[in-house]
Amino acid sequence: MHPRRFVRAVLLIVSLPLVLGAQTLQEKVRAHRVAHEKELMGEYREFVAIPNVSADHENVRRNAEFIVGMLRKRGVAAELLTIAKPGANPVVFGEVRVPGATRTVVFYAHYDGQPVNPKQWAEGLEPFTPVFLTDTVEHGGKIVADWRLGQPVNPQWRLSGRGAADDKAGVMMIINAYDALVKTGGVPTVNVKFFFEGEEEIGSTNLGAILAVHKAKAAGDLWIICDGPRHVSGRKVVAFGVRGDVNMDLTVYAAKRPLHSGNYGNFAPNPALHLVSLLASMKDDNGNVLVKNFYDDYVLFSETEKLAIKEASFTDAQLLKELGLKQPEVPGRSLLEGFELPTLNINGLGSANTGKLAANIIPTTAKATLDLRMVLGNDWQRQAGRVVAHMQEQGWHVMDHEPTDEERAQFAKLIKVEVGEGYNAQRTSMNLPLAQAVVDAVQSTSAEPVIKLPTVGGSLPLIIIEQVLGTRVITVPSVNYDNNQHAENENVKVQFLWEGIETFAALMTMK
Amino acid sequence: MHPRRFVRAVLLIVSLPLVLGAQTLQEKVRAHRVAHEKELMGEYREFVAIPNVSADHENVRRNAEFIVGMLRKRGVAAELLTIAKPGANPVVFGEVRVPGATRTVVFYAHYDGQPVNPKQWAEGLEPFTPVFLTDTVEHGGKIVADWRLGQPVNPQWRLSGRGAADDKAGVMMIINAYDALVKTGGVPTVNVKFFFEGEEEIGSTNLGAILAVHKAKAAGDLWIICDGPRHVSGRKVVAFGVRGDVNMDLTVYAAKRPLHSGNYGNFAPNPALHLVSLLASMKDDNGNVLVKNFYDDYVLFSETEKLAIKEASFTDAQLLKELGLKQPEVPGRSLLEGFELPTLNINGLGSANTGKLAANIIPTTAKATLDLRMVLGNDWQRQAGRVVAHMQEQGWHVMDHEPTDEERAQFAKLIKVEVGEGYNAQRTSMNLPLAQAVVDAVQSTSAEPVIKLPTVGGSLPLIIIEQVLGTRVITVPSVNYDNNQHAENENVKVQFLWEGIETFAALMTMK
Repeated sequence: MHPRRFVRAVLLIVSLPLVLGAQTLQEKVRAHRVAHEKELMGEYREFVAIPNVSADHENVRRNAEFIVGMLRKRGVAAELLTIAKPGANPVVFGEVRVPGATRTVVFYAHYDGQPVNPKQWAEGLEPFTPVFLTDTVEHGGKIVADWRLGQPVNPQWRLSGRGAADDKAGVMMIINAYDALVKTGGVPTVNVKFFFEGEEEIGSTNLGAILAVHKAKAAGDLWIICDGPRHVSGRKVVAFGVRGDVNMDLTVYAAKRPLHSGNYGNFAPNPALHLVSLLASMKDDNGNVLVKNFYDDYVLFSETEKLAIKEASFTDAQLLKELGLKQPEVPGRSLLEGFELPTLNINGLGSANTGKLAANIIPTTAKATLDLRMVLGNDWQRQAGRVVAHMQEQGWHVMDHEPTDEERAQFAKLIKVEVGEGYNAQRTSMNLPLAQAVVDAVQSTSAEPVIKLPTVGGSLPLIIIEQVLGTRVITVPSVNYDNNQHAENENVKVQFLWEGIETFAALMTMK
Repeated sequence: MHPRRFVRAVLLIVSLPLVLGAQTLQEKVRAHRVAHEKELMGEYREFVAIPNVSADHENVRRNAEFIVGMLRKRGVAAELLTIAKPGANPVVFGEVRVPGATRTVVFYAHYDGQPVNPKQWAEGLEPFTPVFLTDTVEHGGKIVADWRLGQPVNPQWRLSGRGAADDKAGVMMIINAYDALVKTGGVPTVNVKFFFEGEEEIGSTNLGAILAVHKAKAAGDLWIICDGPRHVSGRKVVAFGVRGDVNMDLTVYAAKRPLHSGNYGNFAPNPALHLVSLLASMKDDNGNVLVKNFYDDYVLFSETEKLAIKEASFTDAQLLKELGLKQPEVPGRSLLEGFELPTLNINGLGSANTGKLAANIIPTTAKATLDLRMVLGNDWQRQAGRVVAHMQEQGWHVMDHEPTDEERAQFAKLIKVEVGEGYNAQRTSMNLPLAQAVVDAVQSTSAEPVIKLPTVGGSLPLIIIEQVLGTRVITVPSVNYDNNQHAENENVKVQFLWEGIETFAALMTMK
């Protein structure tokens, strides 16, 4: 072909979209998604229907294999990364090398989910039978009973189910972002790696080992984490840090057998009373943790970080109203300002029964589960140790086992403390060029200014990734904030799935 | 007949038992029971197998009809006493008039039971599938798996099941005491009335109305209550009073939906923390209730009562050891001395989940059920009112309903308080001749001195009986103390059933 004719032919091809109405990457990705919504949603419902409680290894593996299938169907080489430890859930790994790319970006999500108590879910909702809701249960959402597979899906609907938002949504968005990108003629600017973990909800206890064993595969210039919710305002978010986390299970012991509260009241100590005294001593009415040295070693936000927090703190009043709260725990402190500090939270309490099931007894035990979040500077073992020291100062005999008869005879206040596996917080500097590139890519898909958070409130084991791989980690949380993650009636808003696909396609073509 | 021959004939008849081996009433009753143990136990297992949770009206009625059958089988005219109120459980009533008797004694027990949570029962135990245990579950008792109907029963065994001790045992003892008495040629010295209630475990809310409607039937010179346990030492007990009782269900509200403890920690108030602060403020570490005026209006024990308490307080050390407790709630105060005072007990606590089911959330609600016991002088409504006032003083907005959006916007501390139907304490003077007659009758069946208690720790609606009928009320508690009444693994020791039959036969022939 004559060179000039070739050039004209090329120009013709290149300018065709202009003639038809020029399309940005985002528009192309969106058009592709719109054309394939029904298949995408059908596949996603199938995915959410596979039980994914982290400890349910058999079903967790079914999830992993389902994801491998999703990747392969889209032409991505995929495999399971495992370690030789019984009960360790596999990572799903996939990789696409892009000729000429100088950077490698690892896209992370997790496919395991928090435990479920089906009784606590609303009528008609089952953790692993995803259905569409017209709104959240709390806002009076109803099940869309007449929807059938293949029918259109209203983007305002919610899809219910454990993991629907946290964090199978991340897997769904990342895989479909890549697919939409390449199916519409796009090419990633970076080598793309897919890394989907199966143990995030139990503290990622094996992640370090998996990364160490599969270091070359996991290596990258940047890890982008897709987990957690966007801002309450709906605005997109880029987050540069996460809190660390550790759980503590407490069990207080009293009499060996349940006692009639009349025959033994005023004589036998009540373990529930002992427990409430202990817990009440840990935090004052202003939300300050009273455990000695609890606030000793956290790193304050930098000026850049404080500014970012200030810019993002504008929806607290709306949030309080929506949650049905008069005021925050510490009046005057914003949601995001609180992210600077470590937390001590009561996840749950239990002793005998309440309400209709209650009997007039003195219970034998009383239990609480605590959640401690760490910020930069805290060490999770040191922090948990402070809570244990607090108990000891108050005269508790702290054990890692059920009390023996000897211990019962010797100590009036008996408590078993089980400290889970924890990890520390992680923060990436907001001033890195890579950080700016991520913000720019996300911003390219949003008319509203992207919110930059020095840290989110939640926890991910990003410190492990940073330490084992020596890489950078940035989080792009992408689901609706009112998703009930970790709790009953978990849901993802369909529109957020669709927008997440656009976000991650943009990140795969970051400058 | 010549007077002397008449006297000789009479002497011959009177001395006949001596010739055959003279038998006391107790010996005759015992021999009759020994000969019929298998049938008695077969019938009792059948009785305990009928679910009897007070609110389960259909099954409660099956229990009532079963008791009617038990009475009729023994030749006692029996009927159900009801009132025209939907859902009111019937009383089973029976009556035997004794020619020449000048006193009428009403024998009371209740056949309804506390709620059950089958999951909390030990492996192999079901609340309504009674089985024999070699000992209490807490003492390592095992199920006697190879026992079959008709085989002998070891008197040291326990029969498990809700109501096995509290208080179907009372029904069983009273009916079989009468039967053994008359079958062995005995004649009651009093008109005997049987009165078996079906709503004791829900506060006997309809008892007053039933007594008022059926006043003539319920009338008697004395009511003897068979409920509650004998002394820890195993000694038999006559009790002259009971505590009053009222339950309070508390629900603390926070955010409308469960929140991720990381994303909302340090911002959203935690209802479990609010609840523990409230509960901890109600009682100090020395077991003193801190609710204002809580101890204002109780009547101190009289000197006679104090003496009785002192005589009976000798087994606390053994009890503490057996319960696995270092010390009582108030070191230095005996179990029975504590009966002088009102109580405030936490029956149960609940908020979200603990342990393996716990999720990292801020729960939406936290609940507690309290049990307040009243002593002489207390009024249950006044006492519950003091607890409510305590909450209000601490800034709680106390409601009888779920919070409205307006209340949520207005108040930071929201609590729903549901006060159950309660009743006050009752005490009968220990110095009445009738009181002495009861003690003497019980003493006639026991080698050990009978323990006299001015009051038991538990509650029965005896004040209602006293007030509506103007009669006297005395309690003869008869089951083993370690029966787990109101709780999981409830059990009755077989020997206590057998001995109870002797006790009540003696009471039916009281002087």
